[in-house]
Amino acid sequence: MATKEKNPDKGVENGKEVEPKSAEEIFEEFKEHSVAEFFTKNKQMLGFSGKVRSLTTVIHEYVTNGLDACEEAGILPDITVKITSVQEEHYLVKVADNGPGIPLDHIGRALGMMLSGTKFHRYMQQRGQQGIGATGCTMFAQLTSGKPIHIRSSTGNGKVYECNVSVNIKTNMPNVSDVQEYEGEFRGVEVMAEFADVKYDRSEYSPLEYLKRTAIANPHAEISFIDPEGRKVRFPRVSESLPERPHEVQPHPLGLESHTLYELMRISPARKVSSFMTTELVRVTSSKVDELRNVIPQFDFDMSPKDVTWEDARRLVAGFKKVKWVAPSAEGLRPIGNDQIEISLRSLLSPEYLSVRSRPPKVYKGGVPFIVEAAISYGGKSGARTEAGSVGGEIMRFSNRSPLLFDAGGCAITKAVKGIEWKRYGISDFDTIPVTVFVNILSAFVPYTGAGKQSIASEPEVVDEIKFAVMDVARDLQRYIAGKVREETRATKRKAIIRYIQLLSEHLPMLANTGNKEDLEKKLTVLVFDKFKADEAEEDKKEKKTRVLMEEEGNESDSDSDGKIEFDEEDM
Amino acid sequence: MATKEKNPDKGVENGKEVEPKSAEEIFEEFKEHSVAEFFTKNKQMLGFSGKVRSLTTVIHEYVTNGLDACEEAGILPDITVKITSVQEEHYLVKVADNGPGIPLDHIGRALGMMLSGTKFHRYMQQRGQQGIGATGCTMFAQLTSGKPIHIRSSTGNGKVYECNVSVNIKTNMPNVSDVQEYEGEFRGVEVMAEFADVKYDRSEYSPLEYLKRTAIANPHAEISFIDPEGRKVRFPRVSESLPERPHEVQPHPLGLESHTLYELMRISPARKVSSFMTTELVRVTSSKVDELRNVIPQFDFDMSPKDVTWEDARRLVAGFKKVKWVAPSAEGLRPIGNDQIEISLRSLLSPEYLSVRSRPPKVYKGGVPFIVEAAISYGGKSGARTEAGSVGGEIMRFSNRSPLLFDAGGCAITKAVKGIEWKRYGISDFDTIPVTVFVNILSAFVPYTGAGKQSIASEPEVVDEIKFAVMDVARDLQRYIAGKVREETRATKRKAIIRYIQLLSEHLPMLANTGNKEDLEKKLTVLVFDKFKADEAEEDKKEKKTRVLMEEEGNESDSDSDGKIEFDEEDM
Repeated sequence: MATKEKNPDKGVENGKEVEPKSAEEIFEEFKEHSVAEFFTKNKQMLGFSGKVRSLTTVIHEYVTNGLDACEEAGILPDITVKITSVQEEHYLVKVADNGPGIPLDHIGRALGMMLSGTKFHRYMQQRGQQGIGATGCTMFAQLTSGKPIHIRSSTGNGKVYECNVSVNIKTNMPNVSDVQEYEGEFRGVEVMAEFADVKYDRSEYSPLEYLKRTAIANPHAEISFIDPEGRKVRFPRVSESLPERPHEVQPHPLGLESHTLYELMRISPARKVSSFMTTELVRVTSSKVDELRNVIPQFDFDMSPKDVTWEDARRLVAGFKKVKWVAPSAEGLRPIGNDQIEISLRSLLSPEYLSVRSRPPKVYKGGVPFIVEAAISYGGKSGARTEAGSVGGEIMRFSNRSPLLFDAGGCAITKAVKGIEWKRYGISDFDTIPVTVFVNILSAFVPYTGAGKQSIASEPEVVDEIKFAVMDVARDLQRYIAGKVREETRATKRKAIIRYIQLLSEHLPMLANTGNKEDLEKKLTVLVFDKFKADEAEEDKKEKKTRVLMEEEGNESDSDSDGKIEFDEEDM
Repeated sequence: MATKEKNPDKGVENGKEVEPKSAEEIFEEFKEHSVAEFFTKNKQMLGFSGKVRSLTTVIHEYVTNGLDACEEAGILPDITVKITSVQEEHYLVKVADNGPGIPLDHIGRALGMMLSGTKFHRYMQQRGQQGIGATGCTMFAQLTSGKPIHIRSSTGNGKVYECNVSVNIKTNMPNVSDVQEYEGEFRGVEVMAEFADVKYDRSEYSPLEYLKRTAIANPHAEISFIDPEGRKVRFPRVSESLPERPHEVQPHPLGLESHTLYELMRISPARKVSSFMTTELVRVTSSKVDELRNVIPQFDFDMSPKDVTWEDARRLVAGFKKVKWVAPSAEGLRPIGNDQIEISLRSLLSPEYLSVRSRPPKVYKGGVPFIVEAAISYGGKSGARTEAGSVGGEIMRFSNRSPLLFDAGGCAITKAVKGIEWKRYGISDFDTIPVTVFVNILSAFVPYTGAGKQSIASEPEVVDEIKFAVMDVARDLQRYIAGKVREETRATKRKAIIRYIQLLSEHLPMLANTGNKEDLEKKLTVLVFDKFKADEAEEDKKEKKTRVLMEEEGNESDSDSDGKIEFDEEDM
């Protein structure tokens, strides 16, 4: 053993020397804990912070699960939500869907075990992607009301079951109890759960607002809501067309990270790297493999994927970046569509002007394709009421058709919209104009900043793409506003001239000493307005020139974004 | 089996009717995944998003672990950080501390297994609290460089070991390899790890800025840094006094949630609820228990804590809110202290004016005490340079002495500071004045919005308290600015008068027809300045009155905050 000597690092606490505590003493405290314990202590990371937000989070989790299940099964969704008051700040929430149901042997893990589910490992556009949300609600029900959640479900085979589900927080294992089975005509899932320490209101962060926005982005869904005071709100289905069923897509070589490629190859049944690439990645043709052979000649494309080392994978990824690729397909992504967005926003905001645009798919890190849909709405009920009572610019954020109501500050959508030089688009100050900007991001994997999924991380490609999409619609609005200003100026001019003509006509007869006032007025009007029209035509010509210049500018900024990922347009 | 009939819910995809997919088919995809897989797919939740931020996150995790370990062991921390370039966007990071070391049998779980550690389950103020960060770095090293991390450690007993650590992402189990043990004089932990897809720069989000701010909040630490270009920066220890060693504190009854109380009672060795309360909660005396007996007479305080149901716990928590309590003690919390903050900020910002304040501890939900320290610095190098090149208000955020560099938008500190009516404090626009606001929040449990721990959730009590703390120092600054404006006005007046006197003296002799200009000027000066001083005294008197009024206003808003948690001042 080493001799104990005076320790030179020894600190002083309140004037007294401190004897160091040993590693052994400290590590006596070493413990493991489950992911359910982690999220019990960090509920706010799942969106359970604040009484209003917590209740909206519950509605969000159940409604997105219902919509995802219906769409995967190919069923037009009918969602009903009912919130009943139990006592002060304590509610019973009931959410039912007409989806495919959950088989009894999966119900425990689906709703009572975190990090399990059908979505996490698949490369598919769905609202849920983590396997945490629904179990988070079960946990939150237990923590605040002390009660398990109650489920009624059937896969539509004539047999219905009901049961209670809870999660063992120490072990993250599900507990299913009080199972009853009976015959009945029902298909889908109905969740009934009690939550305390939550609050229902009708603010912009409320379940009502959440459902309203869900309806905007999901015109194929029928949504009914009964609030705690018994008021019923119905958001009717406005489209009978189900979005294309989501399906898995293969990764695109561009931006694939070494570790992902390495993992994919380790489990690949392919016998050669070349065949792995042409069968398990998109946009890899055998001629593309030949091109790569030239770019990284030291790499053996004939070896087995299982023999590829991590370092080989890294070299392959580096090689991918040196050749041109066809952009990934958007076939796995299901945009809302310009027409549907227009119908929704017109009915919600009755705007004076509306422009909707979709942009072609792009890729961000990890070979993940994504699409941005954007709209701008002006006038009518557009914009948000500020605290001072005036109307200012509003940003409506969506990802994979789910409304994002919270954590706006850190979100890529907010950053992109606020980062636009609005003055360039005829808007002197975004915060003082009646404008609503709508943005929906679609991707098989949306990079959320937190498990609460209310805010999108600022991946540079994503921020740029949102910016360009909003700039597209802003440019449309700019033309409208410019036209409106021109029209107003003209109207003012016309009025002034008419007043002038009237005045002139009043007095000219006296001055000219002729009795026919009407005749004189008519003649003067024709004369002046002919001149006026010629002036306007000249102005229009000028405006058209400016517009062309502006569009060229716009295209420039687009190619800035593409600069990061080079696509071989000819191959497309 | 039910007969297959035309399904009325059946949707239409691209004009074709869609056959519903069954629950059984969907649930074939059901899988479980580990917390390490979750964070591999959601790296951004741990702060690994963006090349610069990712590198700073690595430094943050290792440095906070080093500081926590030293302080718990009672050792004055010496931290050295070295970043070496391996190739483009690929660095070797080496962080060493002189702490208590990690015993070899714990190294795997400490650095290669998520959700394990010494901190998660303890009620103690430490920088780390989740048991995720360091293993997150191991995971990130593997994902980007394909390599395990390398450790050298000793508990100071003359035996040193080195080994490699990695995490099995599929199982979240640690893998320790290449262990070597030898004799040597070393104590502490040295981590060497390689990261690719990261970038070193010297921006406000860089490791250098992170370490600079760490030094500000930890004057008892000696920190050395060598950047990739070999430049050495030393942040010397400026205080030999170690902050009081952190220790566990017991929960305060106010704001305790039912489930926490229920869990505490289930594992309590106490025989009666009353003795559980007086021994395992703070501020519960036996007379307080008697008071509670009157408030909830139907509750049996003599029953065994193990027999308490969840519903009983809920009633007890409701009862707690009906009596007055002594505020929780701050003894578990270790503020930086006004003197240390002042020394740090003066040396960093050379401000023209500085005010530092600490507020008494408060409680937020969960019975968790917290303290806010705030400072405002004006002039000198205060403020942040905006993109346009001008200087604007800057917010320096800290929690438990750790700098928060990222996710400012969603942070309670930003919200609180931006929510202040700065005009009331003589600052017309926070974004255009050379001001730095410093806020440090101390708590055994800081409510972070995400596992990346860069942003504090907006718990109302926390936001209010930050606001009041900043308002305190803003009031000080307001007085200084008002005084300065008054002084400037006076100086201007004085100058004007002097010019007037000079002019008068120039011309009076002629006018008055007397030859002695000097004599006349002296006499006039005395005359005018006597009057001037009397005017100033009058002004000062008025200003003093306003100040008293303002302070009363300030106190009012303080009591607003206390309104939420009523404390029995007499018991204190």
